[in-house]
Amino acid sequence: MKKIAVYPGTFDPVTNGHLDLIHRGAVIFDELIVAVTKHPKKELLFPTDERINMIRDTMKSNGKIIVESFDGLLVDYVKSKGASVIIRGLRAVSDFELELAMALMNRKLDPGIETFFMMTSELYSYLSSGVVREIASLSGDVSALVPDIVHQMLKDKFMSDE
Amino acid sequence: MKKIAVYPGTFDPVTNGHLDLIHRGAVIFDELIVAVTKHPKKELLFPTDERINMIRDTMKSNGKIIVESFDGLLVDYVKSKGASVIIRGLRAVSDFELELAMALMNRKLDPGIETFFMMTSELYSYLSSGVVREIASLSGDVSALVPDIVHQMLKDKFMSDE
Amino acid sequence: MKKIAVYPGTFDPVTNGHLDLIHRGAVIFDELIVAVTKHPKKELLFPTDERINMIRDTMKSNGKIIVESFDGLLVDYVKSKGASVIIRGLRAVSDFELELAMALMNRKLDPGIETFFMMTSELYSYLSSGVVREIASLSGDVSALVPDIVHQMLKDKFMSDE
Amino acid sequence: MKKIAVYPGTFDPVTNGHLDLIHRGAVIFDELIVAVTKHPKKELLFPTDERINMIRDTMKSNGKIIVESFDGLLVDYVKSKGASVIIRGLRAVSDFELELAMALMNRKLDPGIETFFMMTSELYSYLSSGVVREIASLSGDVSALVPDIVHQMLKDKFMSDE
Amino acid sequence: MKKIAVYPGTFDPVTNGHLDLIHRGAVIFDELIVAVTKHPKKELLFPTDERINMIRDTMKSNGKIIVESFDGLLVDYVKSKGASVIIRGLRAVSDFELELAMALMNRKLDPGIETFFMMTSELYSYLSSGVVREIASLSGDVSALVPDIVHQMLKDKFMSDE
Amino acid sequence: MKKIAVYPGTFDPVTNGHLDLIHRGAVIFDELIVAVTKHPKKELLFPTDERINMIRDTMKSNGKIIVESFDGLLVDYVKSKGASVIIRGLRAVSDFELELAMALMNRKLDPGIETFFMMTSELYSYLSSGVVREIASLSGDVSALVPDIVHQMLKDKFMSDE
Repeated sequence: MKKIAVYPGTFDPVTNGHLDLIHRGAVIFDELIVAVTKHPKKELLFPTDERINMIRDTMKSNGKIIVESFDGLLVDYVKSKGASVIIRGLRAVSDFELELAMALMNRKLDPGIETFFMMTSELYSYLSSGVVREIASLSGDVSALVPDIVHQMLKDKFMSDE
Repeated sequence: MKKIAVYPGTFDPVTNGHLDLIHRGAVIFDELIVAVTKHPKKELLFPTDERINMIRDTMKSNGKIIVESFDGLLVDYVKSKGASVIIRGLRAVSDFELELAMALMNRKLDPGIETFFMMTSELYSYLSSGVVREIASLSGDVSALVPDIVHQMLKDKFMSDE
Repeated sequence: MKKIAVYPGTFDPVTNGHLDLIHRGAVIFDELIVAVTKHPKKELLFPTDERINMIRDTMKSNGKIIVESFDGLLVDYVKSKGASVIIRGLRAVSDFELELAMALMNRKLDPGIETFFMMTSELYSYLSSGVVREIASLSGDVSALVPDIVHQMLKDKFMSDE
Repeated sequence: MKKIAVYPGTFDPVTNGHLDLIHRGAVIFDELIVAVTKHPKKELLFPTDERINMIRDTMKSNGKIIVESFDGLLVDYVKSKGASVIIRGLRAVSDFELELAMALMNRKLDPGIETFFMMTSELYSYLSSGVVREIASLSGDVSALVPDIVHQMLKDKFMSDE
Repeated sequence: MKKIAVYPGTFDPVTNGHLDLIHRGAVIFDELIVAVTKHPKKELLFPTDERINMIRDTMKSNGKIIVESFDGLLVDYVKSKGASVIIRGLRAVSDFELELAMALMNRKLDPGIETFFMMTSELYSYLSSGVVREIASLSGDVSALVPDIVHQMLKDKFMSDE
Repeated sequence: MKKIAVYPGTFDPVTNGHLDLIHRGAVIFDELIVAVTKHPKKELLFPTDERINMIRDTMKSNGKIIVESFDGLLVDYVKSKGASVIIRGLRAVSDFELELAMALMNRKLDPGIETFFMMTSELYSYLSSGVVREIASLSGDVSALVPDIVHQMLKDKFMSDE
């Protein structure tokens, strides 16, 4: 039976840290679905279709990776895709507690779905979408932190703001 | 290709928290090898063969689970078994930091091996082999914390001590 | 002399985790006042009177428990009720630090008032009002997480939203 | 009914941080039993009778405080004294996790016994028996960290060592 | 060569905890620049010129301390001042993780700039600008937490609100 | 006046993470004294003179760095060298709490001595002397983790053990 895993997130924008996890996850599972949250509670810099496209563009050569948006309860979405695993990255203790609570709650909502945590590479331990947005908004250089297409989209975004 | 995962530990003794993780891990992978550390740096209550037998006894009905002892570097052992995944449980922040360092170091030693962390069920969040040993040594009741065979072995151990 | 304790919170809505703490606290003290914050800085789902009523309804059979709203500095309120103890629940490390700072500050403001922390039951370690609100807003099932009356009120709230 | 609380510890030696907690706890309960662990797993600097005497000497004027040694499971001891509350101090996150696990385990062993945590005063946040032992062993000045009698006993101990 | 350090922050308002760090930092370096963030992402209680003036007023007798506002990327500002050190205070674990990420990111942006962390005095471990704002807004007494001029400015602010 | 900083530690053995901190610290101060603890409480792999020599060998080209052993209270040693700053590295939350307590205690013992914390490079976040000893003892490859001379000394040590 095909083992499918779901990697959910806001990806606003996707960073090199996310990409590292996606590639490592895709080695282990038969299919990895990157699930882009349509309506997160936080305000967004990029609309859903742009957040999807920047991941798809970067991932296009890997046939095991699918990029989609989703809405509603994560466990319902995971089940609807025939998946049994949620993948999440852990960088820090503050991540850990929130993620632990979410994983326990998701098991409560559907005991058939398992959450696996992968450690973010030490190279990206300080990296988050929020940090990228902040540095880009101050005209700092983020070219080492995100794929080229995102670098370009950030430049367009913050130049058109000025 | 068969997906094999290794769940390493000292299991001195195995607890219901370990068993929960083993069963949940075996659902996701084609084979789960429980790897019992032969010579951990801490002093042991049970010798290696007893630690293996108490897990084998409890797991005997599940054909996907193999129980073995191992020695030397974990990544070398994992590779020698044709496995690409290490599974570890996370209970608390203090676990988290040590485990993060070990996972990063293991990736340094062999980038082809991935560590997946599973959250311990909230029912076992306070449970560890050390706590079980301490309560049993004070004649407390550990029957809800370990499988029957371990409960019996602990009783034998601490009665024969008196 | 009557020992009175105050358990302050926003309770938006009250969860089974809160109720567990209230009952355990009421065993130890002669009177337990559940103090519902009138004007917390966060936006509310339920108005103050509904937050009071959902707790009163659930607690009605326990004569030692009083439910009230309060305003202003917590230490002033505690003193005005003739109480000398504040009770707070601890779930996680992130709770811990904020709570430690608040307890030290409250002792600075009034050294005669003591804060006691109780550990949330492991069964509710992942549970918070925010998690309940989120799951309910996505039409997830929260019946195991809150008392019946709150379950009903959440259903009414989010149905009328649609 | 008399409300009795037990404050267990090794007290090797008692510090000003412990004394602060003992006094604050004795204000809230009708009787506070300081329970000195007879056989902790760690090696001791002071034998049990000296650890008891240094607390008794400092506490002699407070009629609500009793100092005793104890052995075996803490929950059994607490019950045998007619107490329903265990008091523990919290200084730091690392304390917190261990204490959380112990409190949950003790509730598992006896649900009728409640653990209350008190925050250590900010003045003693860095203070522990281990730190006192280390500084005293290096001939550092610990007079601001422990009661006079302990200061004297430490001087005697480390002078007679030389 | 003159050693210059920069201590950046929002200081809304400056507290006794900040002042303690500023004085301790100024002992070690030849010049300490207190850099007040002009446009932090959070909403402000005091405008930039008032936040500068309250620090300048308190620091006026110390010739090594300079107070300025700044904008844009911190590392660019630090470099423009001929400084090579950023100073930050650490109070708690939650501070620590955010600060670690920021320090690593700043080293990525400019490896020639070093971040030094100083521990907040235990006397101010519970103190933050946010806590001061909250207590003052509830008419609590903050005179022991901030310098006199800030105390006065807070009184003016919240009285004029009523 | 010459600004002297002391970087104390056991260095059993020195790692690339330590060396990174030593070099970064030596940029900021006029002199950096690497102070090797003579009698730490833990058991040692390398005697004091070998621990000193492995650092001296690696540092020989940098005239600002001095390597010495020390004994007794750290604050007394720091003062005796005319230094006013202690430098410590922070990798993780568990480091943080212990280091915070030590820094506060050292300020208590001598308020004239300041502790500065530097964040370990993300490249070495998982690295410690203990991890190096363990991997080397299992014949793992530590050549990327320690300077060449230490790599050689570890090989000699563990080969002669077999």
